[in-house]
Amino acid sequence: MASDLDETHAFQPRFDRDGLIAAIVTDAGDGTVLMFAYMNAESLRLTQDTGIAHFWSRSRQALWKKGETSGEMLKVIEILTDCDQDVLQVKAQLQGKGAACHTGRRSCFYRRVEGDRLIFLDEDRLFDPGAVYGRGGPAS
Amino acid sequence: MASDLDETHAFQPRFDRDGLIAAIVTDAGDGTVLMFAYMNAESLRLTQDTGIAHFWSRSRQALWKKGETSGEMLKVIEILTDCDQDVLQVKAQLQGKGAACHTGRRSCFYRRVEGDRLIFLDEDRLFDPGAVYGRGGPAS
Repeated sequence: MASDLDETHAFQPRFDRDGLIAAIVTDAGDGTVLMFAYMNAESLRLTQDTGIAHFWSRSRQALWKKGETSGEMLKVIEILTDCDQDVLQVKAQLQGKGAACHTGRRSCFYRRVEGDRLIFLDEDRLFDPGAVYGRGGPAS
Repeated sequence: MASDLDETHAFQPRFDRDGLIAAIVTDAGDGTVLMFAYMNAESLRLTQDTGIAHFWSRSRQALWKKGETSGEMLKVIEILTDCDQDVLQVKAQLQGKGAACHTGRRSCFYRRVEGDRLIFLDEDRLFDPGAVYGRGGPAS
């Protein structure tokens, strides 16, 4: 029962059928949601052990040390879990140029939904993704 | 290619193999992450049409109007999407007693991970979950 997980002091992360747990990354300073990714058990352990955010890249099917290519690493300040322990919130400090998004923007959440259209809220590129990643593009 | 989705003005939500898209709910006021759930196309449409957050309950396999039982509805102020349009951020105002979590707490993220232990950050119950949901427990 998920309800047993609500009030326990034991951390028992619930990985899904693919062995992954959702991770919401927020800015430890102002709380902005920066990105969303998944961790497997190994990336969670590495994140806890090193204090640098590691994820699992579903597109590459590989361990993903965020910022390894771009330099835009995330220093982990605090990890929270939710009531039924199937989601993590990673409060982090942006390193490098302060861009969590592979597009070079600070946050991946830079567009507002208006019906079936998107309004851009942030056009400020902190790095040039073409120069950083080349044509192949980044992990995700 | 996901990269085509990065700079488009067209909202093209990418539902997963189960027809779901991840939704991070934050407090429209102070940005606190309140909860995390999934929407299918119908719940996203209802959310956009009514301004009240609707989700898909994976445990019940049913449309889930958040707060229908508890009264703790979420009034949607703004919806953002991420770079590759497979995650939504729903900025919302808490209604009712101001508890997004089925445990009666404001946020589902009320515990900090310390190694394999959890430290409670919020013991404040805004409602009594036993009285609201009875034994059956809520949707999730």
